[in-house]
Amino acid sequence: MIKPRTPPGVMELLPREQIAFQRMLDTIRRNYERFGFLPVETPVFELSETLLTKSGGETERQVYFVQSTGALAKEGEGLPELALRFDLTVPLARYVAEHEHELTFPFRRYQIQRVYRGERAQRGRFREFYQCDIDVIGKDALSVRFDAEILAVIHAVFSDLGIGDFTIQLNNRKLMRGFFEAQGVTDGEQQALVLREVDKLDKRGADYVRETLTGEGFGMAADAVERILDFVAVRSTDHADALAKLDALGQGGETFNQGIAELREVLELVKALGVPESAYCLNFSIARGLDYYTGTVYETQLDGYPQIGSICSGGRYDDLASHYTKSKLPGVGISIGLTRLFWQLREAGLIAGSDESSVQALVALMDETQLADSLDIARRLRAAGINTEVQMESRKLARQFQYASRAGIRFVVLAGEDELARGVVTVKDLVREQQFEVKREELASSLKVELEQARALAGR
Amino acid sequence: MIKPRTPPGVMELLPREQIAFQRMLDTIRRNYERFGFLPVETPVFELSETLLTKSGGETERQVYFVQSTGALAKEGEGLPELALRFDLTVPLARYVAEHEHELTFPFRRYQIQRVYRGERAQRGRFREFYQCDIDVIGKDALSVRFDAEILAVIHAVFSDLGIGDFTIQLNNRKLMRGFFEAQGVTDGEQQALVLREVDKLDKRGADYVRETLTGEGFGMAADAVERILDFVAVRSTDHADALAKLDALGQGGETFNQGIAELREVLELVKALGVPESAYCLNFSIARGLDYYTGTVYETQLDGYPQIGSICSGGRYDDLASHYTKSKLPGVGISIGLTRLFWQLREAGLIAGSDESSVQALVALMDETQLADSLDIARRLRAAGINTEVQMESRKLARQFQYASRAGIRFVVLAGEDELARGVVTVKDLVREQQFEVKREELASSLKVELEQARALAGR
Repeated sequence: MIKPRTPPGVMELLPREQIAFQRMLDTIRRNYERFGFLPVETPVFELSETLLTKSGGETERQVYFVQSTGALAKEGEGLPELALRFDLTVPLARYVAEHEHELTFPFRRYQIQRVYRGERAQRGRFREFYQCDIDVIGKDALSVRFDAEILAVIHAVFSDLGIGDFTIQLNNRKLMRGFFEAQGVTDGEQQALVLREVDKLDKRGADYVRETLTGEGFGMAADAVERILDFVAVRSTDHADALAKLDALGQGGETFNQGIAELREVLELVKALGVPESAYCLNFSIARGLDYYTGTVYETQLDGYPQIGSICSGGRYDDLASHYTKSKLPGVGISIGLTRLFWQLREAGLIAGSDESSVQALVALMDETQLADSLDIARRLRAAGINTEVQMESRKLARQFQYASRAGIRFVVLAGEDELARGVVTVKDLVREQQFEVKREELASSLKVELEQARALAGR
Repeated sequence: MIKPRTPPGVMELLPREQIAFQRMLDTIRRNYERFGFLPVETPVFELSETLLTKSGGETERQVYFVQSTGALAKEGEGLPELALRFDLTVPLARYVAEHEHELTFPFRRYQIQRVYRGERAQRGRFREFYQCDIDVIGKDALSVRFDAEILAVIHAVFSDLGIGDFTIQLNNRKLMRGFFEAQGVTDGEQQALVLREVDKLDKRGADYVRETLTGEGFGMAADAVERILDFVAVRSTDHADALAKLDALGQGGETFNQGIAELREVLELVKALGVPESAYCLNFSIARGLDYYTGTVYETQLDGYPQIGSICSGGRYDDLASHYTKSKLPGVGISIGLTRLFWQLREAGLIAGSDESSVQALVALMDETQLADSLDIARRLRAAGINTEVQMESRKLARQFQYASRAGIRFVVLAGEDELARGVVTVKDLVREQQFEVKREELASSLKVELEQARALAGR
């Protein structure tokens, strides 16, 4: 006998939670599709040579290799041929390069699949997790207008998810680079080091950061450090303030000015796209992966739960697939790590787990002889699009109600001898805690009305 | 530079095909949910000890092992700890055993995920493929009524998929076992060997099978072989005929009679569930995995494409998880191998690839100055639930139409200077090849009506 257990570092859900998780996946997908993004799925494994193109990044050290029984027998001949994807970006690069001549650019794709990282086992760290990505890929060039559209998608997704107020924080890597260069920090790596210190502001305070940057290792001038601390402290409060904050930056070098112009265009279009001002702001401390992003960068925070960190991040990059094609493929995209987000929301008590089931009606069975009637009632409900379970063996009615209630099934449909004789059924609505009688042939349409009302109320 | 390519043995789709594939997945899921099945997802990898419980089965020889970089370095210490699932049945067994006390029985779950087999590379054989499974698991016992419900689900799924007429073929392992025992073939393995020969009827003809079974290896009596050949030739033509065919079998041993009683009950309930008679029949040659299934067995064939073989198979088993728990967990389930089915339908020309896109409307851009209006029009369409792409940079109108047409986008929305002034937009319907003008604020509702009509016509 083997003890049944999952490997460590995976999130496996019970059905009620899985339904809640699936609703979130569906919501994300619905919004991605609503903005015209097309679905792509790639294999869970890629050739190792495809995945391991960069040298020695953290994620690459965490790769899982895959070997068939046969390949395992022939070990000792270098790296295994296959490995599990550790993100959806490398597969996207490979996909776009491979199918370049069959795709239309700008290419907008969404991809919602799981990825794999051999992380150290730790609470809240997952070795298998969902990423929900969108990217727009251009050929040779891609208008900054898409950066605004991506922000509108983030807004649509999180409004629809209904997990609380959130703020999409915007910055621009060109602006940052231009600014740091003006402070004498011209080297990209040095900028990264400085930003890493600046990131400690919240935890260690301004004095600590000041000391470090003017200290031996960095040796920066005190006034340059002050200007940097002022710069990264910039947050806009509303749309007009965001534009004013950009104006206040004045003029600088070419890169600096370009960053400002891009941010301004993004802000303008975001407004034209109808995103409410409260949903976005400038935050000049947002940097993201410095060696990857080259323009707009986004982070998204739940206003009530800043400790969760960014729940949706991304940005603009210059060239997606330089390892696989000579074509220049600039892009902009974002990613939602849904497994981790779900876990955090659950930890914060924001996943009720008492959500309604995907099953909407239970046809109870009061007497074995009425099974054929139950099946017929269920058939009609299903034909009308109502997810329906039939009680296949009769048990005490109280237990059938208890089951429906625990399972989150809203309607219990009863058709006893008396009801069948009168051509009606009794419906017990466990949400409204009401009971009503309806003609058998009107049952489906009457439940549909109730369910559509509930959907409309929930804004779905 | 690395040549971008997928590993052999996977099916990667271009977006138009992916949309068609996704529609099939959605249809299957919708029908599974409609019958009250609950979603379950399990990790792509399981502990090797969980997966490799049986000794030496074909699928187990095809398992893919998974190793992190660290584990790879410590090689030579027996089998790797993790392996990719090769079906959804072993993970289900592990899941039910692990969560036994948190689940309600009968437990109805659906699971739609990919599985992995290190098959020999071959056209139409996949190393990664989708399985779409449902199972009902009982504790200690499970009524045969669920076997009828499963058949109704198969019917609902394939009716809704709309890939042509199909027939669900029914048999019962108890009936077969009882029958073979009466012919003197009492040993299970011997029954399997005889059935394997009988399976060659179509290809080799009755004379070949007769010769083999009466010949040296089997040494069966000629009259027993004739009775077997008559038995496996049984096919029913309609519901009454199916019942008559069962009556004609007469009485036999206990197992034999039990098989007949089960088939009769399934047939009766299938009818009560409203499954049309043309969709199912008895076929006494259907055996499926002999050592696994113990009662009802199903295979499903596309009437017009018998060469595709069974597109949905399954059956009843006595004990799901004997490797992981002492509880007795009988069940019944089916599986649809969607990757292979999609591939075969495409080969047979049944996947048009000219299906409509998931994108329903393209807002054209005629003049750069009208971008804000385009974005506003798109916003309203999206708010109404219409999947909408905006042309973000103006190009020749002819090219925008060409793009929409190639991409399968039905509506192109035009709002030029003149339209904007009059508060209207022009809609070009590429499906109906019509053009009409509508007030800007009525655009969304008017397209919604068109799309709902199309959905109703398609029966979705």
